[in-house]
Amino acid sequence: MKDGTVLTGDGLDRRTLLLRGLGLAGGAVTAAMLPSNVGASNGLPPNVPAWTKSLGPGVLTHPYGQPSPYEAAVQRRTVDWLTADRIASISFTPLADLNGIITPSGLVFERYHAGVPQIDPAEHRLMIHGMVKRPLVLTMDDLQRLPSVSVIRFLECPANGGMEWRGAQMDRVQFTHGMLACCEWTGVLLSTLLEEVGVDPKASWILAEGADGAHMSRSIPMDKALDDAMVVFAQNGEALRPEQGYPVRLINPGWEGNTSIKWLRRLKVGDKPWHHREETSKYTDLMPDGRAREFSFVQECNSVITAPSPEKPLTVKGRYQIQGFAWSGRGKIKHVDVSSDGGRTWQEARITSVVLPRALTRFALDFEWDGSPRYLQSRAVDDTGYVQPTYSQLRAVRGTNSIYHKNAIHTWKVNENGSVDNVQFS
Amino acid sequence: MKDGTVLTGDGLDRRTLLLRGLGLAGGAVTAAMLPSNVGASNGLPPNVPAWTKSLGPGVLTHPYGQPSPYEAAVQRRTVDWLTADRIASISFTPLADLNGIITPSGLVFERYHAGVPQIDPAEHRLMIHGMVKRPLVLTMDDLQRLPSVSVIRFLECPANGGMEWRGAQMDRVQFTHGMLACCEWTGVLLSTLLEEVGVDPKASWILAEGADGAHMSRSIPMDKALDDAMVVFAQNGEALRPEQGYPVRLINPGWEGNTSIKWLRRLKVGDKPWHHREETSKYTDLMPDGRAREFSFVQECNSVITAPSPEKPLTVKGRYQIQGFAWSGRGKIKHVDVSSDGGRTWQEARITSVVLPRALTRFALDFEWDGSPRYLQSRAVDDTGYVQPTYSQLRAVRGTNSIYHKNAIHTWKVNENGSVDNVQFS
Repeated sequence: MKDGTVLTGDGLDRRTLLLRGLGLAGGAVTAAMLPSNVGASNGLPPNVPAWTKSLGPGVLTHPYGQPSPYEAAVQRRTVDWLTADRIASISFTPLADLNGIITPSGLVFERYHAGVPQIDPAEHRLMIHGMVKRPLVLTMDDLQRLPSVSVIRFLECPANGGMEWRGAQMDRVQFTHGMLACCEWTGVLLSTLLEEVGVDPKASWILAEGADGAHMSRSIPMDKALDDAMVVFAQNGEALRPEQGYPVRLINPGWEGNTSIKWLRRLKVGDKPWHHREETSKYTDLMPDGRAREFSFVQECNSVITAPSPEKPLTVKGRYQIQGFAWSGRGKIKHVDVSSDGGRTWQEARITSVVLPRALTRFALDFEWDGSPRYLQSRAVDDTGYVQPTYSQLRAVRGTNSIYHKNAIHTWKVNENGSVDNVQFS
Repeated sequence: MKDGTVLTGDGLDRRTLLLRGLGLAGGAVTAAMLPSNVGASNGLPPNVPAWTKSLGPGVLTHPYGQPSPYEAAVQRRTVDWLTADRIASISFTPLADLNGIITPSGLVFERYHAGVPQIDPAEHRLMIHGMVKRPLVLTMDDLQRLPSVSVIRFLECPANGGMEWRGAQMDRVQFTHGMLACCEWTGVLLSTLLEEVGVDPKASWILAEGADGAHMSRSIPMDKALDDAMVVFAQNGEALRPEQGYPVRLINPGWEGNTSIKWLRRLKVGDKPWHHREETSKYTDLMPDGRAREFSFVQECNSVITAPSPEKPLTVKGRYQIQGFAWSGRGKIKHVDVSSDGGRTWQEARITSVVLPRALTRFALDFEWDGSPRYLQSRAVDDTGYVQPTYSQLRAVRGTNSIYHKNAIHTWKVNENGSVDNVQFS
């Protein structure tokens, strides 16, 4: 092939073949991809569009940048029948449109109980008191003078997938798994703050309370507080977003998101849990016998395929990537298996991102779609050896009364027309 | 101390002491931090503000979330005298306000030569041609069907700090070092694409060309193309931002940002470099003898203290964190030393983030300020053993003619009033 002469003769034939390998019908491609200047030997690509022949807007058109207008459909969404109003409600992360492991702060799911308090950081205080030698009231300035650390960790509402316990119900991966996000969090280890105040050796629990109108509060065991719990003021490099707890929140890595109290104003050290509303009537696991498990903190190993998915149907036969997320509140993802026949056979997926403890992890597998119906599943294993369970395994222990901690293997059905449905296998 | 009775008697004394340790003057603190309800034994923190007694806005007030209005000062900035207009200009990342290693996409520096092309992704094409067996024209859809990977890597304009070669000149860390950012990038390895097209064994260089009005183009050696160069469509989890190359760009990890061509529309495989404008009259290193080094791609090991800095002055005597970034285009940061006496003595800083190759890395060191003038410096070492040079070491080789690849140890002077100036030590 002559340099500068493209997409003609022999080159075109082979290209058409290759593109068919990419899953595109040859004819349609030819029309779409051969604009008038193809075959010219000027070395320019086809489709020299208006924007290549003009000047665009200059720097600081947006001092704080925004997505392309062509990406406007990528946004948080809610399901209005889930809650009585939007003040105590949920919006979901658009998982199918995410790439990599970082969730952009503007797309992180929302969950709160009295709306988003509009906090002036100069007026905000964090009090640490109770069974301590030196109670403290900290300003945001004080907090930022203490040693801080930055970690990338997932955050998941324990009700994620809660609508699916009794059968497939939601029609988007945004709704089946979208109370999930992963950010870089910067803050002061709670252990550092506890050292500052001097904890009574008899203390064993800490109450964390938010400054929102719901006074959201949870009891945190001292072990977690001294392990990796953090008092966080930044998210993905910048200050926390208002709906994520601005100016300061707790993060309990790997634990149900509800414990990571937002708009944190108070940490009280004590010697027993408080049994407040959000750890008794809510955020407990209702078992088959009618009793409820309290303080089931860990988000166990889980995974989900984000493409193909209802939002990412197949358009033509051919080559695709099956892609998704895996995560575990216990540690790192060890591997992920993928099935396209409803769990009869499995293939190990490639891990396509950095693997960090208690962080979202990306997997992918090449997939050649022949146009037949397929049942897609993913199954993650973490570095403790825990294997993500099937629905029947999970229900054998937990029944179907709970709305929390559903981590069963999820199934997408690819239909003959390429659309994708949420279905359940036992 | 009685549980529930806070900030009184003995507790208050000790607290005042501790806060003085945090660098706050006792008197001012007492007034600011003891609102009227302190001393009440109701267990509530002080300062129960309006937002704790009311409901806030509900979910999806912002389907795509935005920072708190209190953070409006955190934004990109430019220096208008640097360039003739904003169409071919620079805006800088606000480094002093960043946390962790991820730069939020809205704050990533801008650098371009013909404004931001407003590209419709459905109309965009990427052509791969030249010394290849099967030239290809790819749509964005095609590209996203190929195997992709996600990596966290820094991006730095080689002109970063270019104003400082002959002496301290800029009055903010945003301007001395702010052509720097670190994001998670998702895309297809260039090696994957080259395998698709079948490269002629005699080929050794690739021309990458942008779709902007400047037709920005650079010659990339085949070694880099086959190593870790990526054709990237996503940044920090979502589609690239328009000013970062939407819908697709090249990323050459660790190399001068200018080679990571944005709005990528063409990759031409050849057997020699093209010597285009941006690799001859620009982006070359002018040496003391008047000759210029071409193709000096790597961004060598560098570091900068972001606080204290001109934007983050000290307000009172006491305890602070010296914080900053280190990075190397060669690999991982091995350690960072910090001096507060202009380089006479050094202490090893803590690394406070995950350490990834060719990524920003965070360091911090406790600092007790006694009110005297101090000269703060950081010196990074990467895992090749390369030690960040002093200005005199760098100038001994490179002179002061260049505007590129300045990675000398930077000095901030802390004045007696706590303000911070940009100064230079040899």
